[in-house]
Order: sequence, then structure tokens, then C-alpha cells
Amino acid sequence: MIEEKLRLLGITLPPPTRAVGAYVPVARIGNTAFVAGHIAKRDGKPWVGKLGANVSLEEGKAAARGVALDLIATLADAIGGIDNVKRIAKIMVLVNSADTFTEQHLVANGASELIGDIFGEIGAHARSAFGVAQIPFGACVEIELIAEVTS
Amino acid sequence: MIEEKLRLLGITLPPPTRAVGAYVPVARIGNTAFVAGHIAKRDGKPWVGKLGANVSLEEGKAAARGVALDLIATLADAIGGIDNVKRIAKIMVLVNSADTFTEQHLVANGASELIGDIFGEIGAHARSAFGVAQIPFGACVEIELIAEVTS
Amino acid sequence: MIEEKLRLLGITLPPPTRAVGAYVPVARIGNTAFVAGHIAKRDGKPWVGKLGANVSLEEGKAAARGVALDLIATLADAIGGIDNVKRIAKIMVLVNSADTFTEQHLVANGASELIGDIFGEIGAHARSAFGVAQIPFGACVEIELIAEVTS
Repeated sequence: MIEEKLRLLGITLPPPTRAVGAYVPVARIGNTAFVAGHIAKRDGKPWVGKLGANVSLEEGKAAARGVALDLIATLADAIGGIDNVKRIAKIMVLVNSADTFTEQHLVANGASELIGDIFGEIGAHARSAFGVAQIPFGACVEIELIAEVTS
Repeated sequence: MIEEKLRLLGITLPPPTRAVGAYVPVARIGNTAFVAGHIAKRDGKPWVGKLGANVSLEEGKAAARGVALDLIATLADAIGGIDNVKRIAKIMVLVNSADTFTEQHLVANGASELIGDIFGEIGAHARSAFGVAQIPFGACVEIELIAEVTS
Repeated sequence: MIEEKLRLLGITLPPPTRAVGAYVPVARIGNTAFVAGHIAKRDGKPWVGKLGANVSLEEGKAAARGVALDLIATLADAIGGIDNVKRIAKIMVLVNSADTFTEQHLVANGASELIGDIFGEIGAHARSAFGVAQIPFGACVEIELIAEVTS
């Protein structure tokens, strides 16, 4: 029971992201759920900045961890609870990067490690991480997620 | 009937993109169709430029709308007609962005809104939008799409 | 038999990428396999550089070909052999690009052509290719892959 695991870890899911106009936070094809890109936030506002410029590696990792938590909250809300997750299959981690920053994989670990902590074996996911020129609202990290869910 | 909806909206689908050498415009796994990245065009040529530099937000939105229309035409052609679309599940919107441009989500709305207009409820899709360093041919926008189709 | 085809082409698959800490190289939802982003390597080390700056188009294409071979090796290892591939469905090709480099599609052909050579018809894949600001370890190319596999 992942619900139970969250309690043991002392993690409370944040409020889910809900539909905002032109698109939806989660869309499904059968048992595959596509969770829209979520941007990093701090104190409820976009966490603005660029790795390799004005955001440190530790901050970037914390930002990625926060985005992963938001993604899980959004997914859980859309499918009737976190225990309906069968598998976290893939994440794509976009790091707002100065031209010289090459540790996107370490930033992404902030998200991957949280997923591992919460989901254990069913959290074993593939991923891509890379540096992008910019992200909506100037956020330092954006992540999207694909999961298998129960029907 | 989406065909009917297109008529009501006065939208004519452009010619589909066909296979060009090393890859194909649409590949399927069961009922999931992956539509290859399509770049923005104007007057049949790549719509070149960068948001935040020499392409305005309004132009970027129009470019994204045009790419969405091309994607839908390509998908419809590959699956025997637009009424075989069951769900537009996800789009990934790449915006050729200057380092300082942070409104990729507004550019992406050009695509999302068109999909909503044409498909209504079955057009409710997840998405990611972000700024990239460059796009093939220097195009200002590139979008790829994942859809559920009838078998 | 793809195994046979590899022999005819004189291609030996490299050692597969194995799980490294926070994520896994291949995750599945049913018959869909998601292969994590693999970066370009040369002599076993990251192939560092930027297209349009210090990596030529020919080098970039060779790098993309090499990444495709690594992806196929990783996939084959995870699913019990290359003949369990039913279809290469999609690749996403990230090219570490100077602001002015606009031939990401030609770099990507290095991967697409190899996939075509090895898999023939079942290698007919959709793809996206674009230029990113950076890639982990400063690699010049990163590619992720989605395939249909036998159950």
C-alpha cells in the first residue's frame, strides 16, 4: 500500500494540479496515463532560474524532488488514489540550463530518488534528462511523467 | 463526427506529411499512434525564427496552430480518416526560444486551442511545452503528438 | 530473424546499459518498452561537444548511430533478445546545439538509418529531433526510444 508508505515517510501529497484552460493535467490511453509537464514551484510560485547561472545543483535537485511530488499528487487525484498506480514508467526531466551546465542527471536524481522512496519496485522508471533554453514562467525545472495505472 | 465539425468550423485539412526517407510520419503500437515532430511552416516553407528575438508571441501562437493542423492531417491520413481518432492524448511543444523568452505555454495554446475546437472532449490532452536551442531548418516551433485511435 | 540480419550486416551489439541507481534503462507498460535516454560515447567515454561549434555534422551523425546501437543493445538485453522486438515506434533525438545549428534532422538520420538497416519494415519509426542547450556530461547527442515488444 503506497498510501501507507507515504505515511511512514512522513510525506503529505500537495494539492493536485487541475485542468487549466487549453489542456488537462492527465490524459489516458487505456492503462497508460500521461501526466502533463509540471514546473518547479517554491512557496506556490514558479521557482525561477537557471542551473549553471543562479540556481545551485542542490537547489535544482530539491526543485526536481518538488516537481515529482506535484506530479504524483496530480496523478493520484486523477486516478482515484495513489494505490491505483501500477508502475511509474518514464519521466522526462527538463533542466533550465546555462550553456555550460552538464549535470542534468544529478538534478533529475532529485525526482528519481523520491519516486524510488515512495514506490519502491513499481517506481523503477526509465528517464531522459537534458538542458533546455527556457521553461514556461522561467522555472528552473519541468518534468512530465508516464505511468501504468489500474483500469 | 469530427469530419462534420471541421466543416462547421470552416477548416480544411492540409495535405498530410508522407514518409521521407529514414523515418515515418506515424507509427503505431496497438491503438496508440505516435506522430513524428512536425515543424512550423508558412507558405509551404519552414517558418524560421526565435521567440523572444524575431518572432512575436502572436506569430508563435499562429505557428503552433498551423503545426497542430498539419499533425492532425498527417494522423487522419495514416489511420483512414479523422473520425478514427479516439483521443488526442499528449502533445510536446518545442519553442525555438531566446534565453529570455518564458511564455512557451502561451505559444503552445495555439495548438491546444485548435485541438479543443476540433475534437471537443476527446481532444482533452496532456502536454509539455518548453524552449529549445534550435529546431531543424531553424523553424520557430516543432510539435509531436500521441493519440489513441480505433483499431 | 533480426539476429541473422545483424550477422549479415557485420554488426555486433555493444554491452547493454544496466541499471544505475535512481532509474532503470528499460521500463515497460504491457508490450510498450520505454528505453531511457542514452548519451553518445566514444572509446567508452561521453562524446563531448556541440554541433555548430566543435562537432561536425558527420561526427554528430556517427554519434547518433552509436547511440542507436547502444539503445538497441540495452533493449535487446532487457527483453530476452533482439528478436523480441516487434516494432521500433519512436525515437527522440536531442542534439547539443549551438544557437545557429539547424540540421538536427541530418544528425538524427545517423540513428534512423541504422534502425532501418537492422530492422527493415519493423524499424519504421516516428521521431522528433531538436537542439538542446546541454546534455548530461556535455555529450553531443542523447536519444531515447519507445518500442513494441513481444509479451
